[in-house]
Amino acid sequence: MTSKPRLQLALDHTSLDAALHTAERLHPYVDIIEAGTILCISAGIQAVRALRERCPQHTLVADLKVADAGATLAEQAFAQGANWMTVICAAPLATMASAQAVAARHQGEIQIELFGRWTLEDAKRWLDLGIRQAIYHRGRDAQASGQTWSKQDLDIMKALSDMGIELSITGGITPADLPLFKDIAVTAFIAGRALAEAADPIAAARQFHSAINDIWRG
Amino acid sequence: MTSKPRLQLALDHTSLDAALHTAERLHPYVDIIEAGTILCISAGIQAVRALRERCPQHTLVADLKVADAGATLAEQAFAQGANWMTVICAAPLATMASAQAVAARHQGEIQIELFGRWTLEDAKRWLDLGIRQAIYHRGRDAQASGQTWSKQDLDIMKALSDMGIELSITGGITPADLPLFKDIAVTAFIAGRALAEAADPIAAARQFHSAINDIWRG
Repeated sequence: MTSKPRLQLALDHTSLDAALHTAERLHPYVDIIEAGTILCISAGIQAVRALRERCPQHTLVADLKVADAGATLAEQAFAQGANWMTVICAAPLATMASAQAVAARHQGEIQIELFGRWTLEDAKRWLDLGIRQAIYHRGRDAQASGQTWSKQDLDIMKALSDMGIELSITGGITPADLPLFKDIAVTAFIAGRALAEAADPIAAARQFHSAINDIWRG
Repeated sequence: MTSKPRLQLALDHTSLDAALHTAERLHPYVDIIEAGTILCISAGIQAVRALRERCPQHTLVADLKVADAGATLAEQAFAQGANWMTVICAAPLATMASAQAVAARHQGEIQIELFGRWTLEDAKRWLDLGIRQAIYHRGRDAQASGQTWSKQDLDIMKALSDMGIELSITGGITPADLPLFKDIAVTAFIAGRALAEAADPIAAARQFHSAINDIWRG
């Protein structure tokens, strides 16, 4: 039995104040807090520091989707208090390696964001670099254009999971979707607007935890 | 005969003040100014606005390497004064389309950053969306690990160029490299540290222009 998936709050606000407000309200109800790409671009890397100050105990993710300059951007993210930082799968292996070296020095971890074209051979190379996490992503644009979770998605996730890659899963996920993923080693379910923009965000977080507890009885 | 390539100054500082200082010193000697990914992550999107205020006449690029949330990030970049914004080739077509729609509304343009796995079929789809620019990239990490410009690079650039895609070229380029690219429709050569960290940055910019004028006599 794999360990129980955690719940990750993605903050994709264009206003740092709005993101901090959401974090202050919801942090007791989630396990991991993410400074989303939109927030990091809008407010800069200070968003990571501001979240670290307010949520000192949470695992904190800098979702930078790094494609180049791995060491420089990793230094920025981890120095501001991130525990994990994302690198896009299209990045050169040299970028992944340099990001991973900085992450390791900070006791942090790199997560590979899966977008576009990549192969299981690529995933083997990520493991060889010491990277053990990936994010399986149904993009918000793909989602808005109607793309749903398919058997192919689930088969690919299972293959990665069987290789030893821990997956976080994101893209319009609701509690009702979670049973789909019961055979996969899920590190976290990542929810943004499903939490922050719910009529009752705290109730929404509780519904996620309740679904997780039902499916992964552990 | 294609038009003469322009010279693009990439600002990849982690300090906004340092980037603005470099821009103020070098803007009379370059054609295009780029708020690099490192700068945009470090300082946030205000970096684009600050550069627009100081360089009102220059073409200004926001190098965000967008992978998702195309409309939101494009709105951020173009509202702050960018003329062009980069999207990574691994992004879903839906992201490219939504970024392109916002760009068109602002009389701006999208540039596809070529990283990792992509095909000429993908490039055809970018053209179908109305995207006419791409950036051919020898990443700084790839470059640091010794990867050089190869015949394969040049053949791929020529194929894109022949399809009607205008290329900007980046990755440790020096004036001595420019003759390599004489058969390609080059929009811009992008130089960062080769300009900003040169012993004499203004002389370095002049060397680029001189090489461009020698090769593309127009």
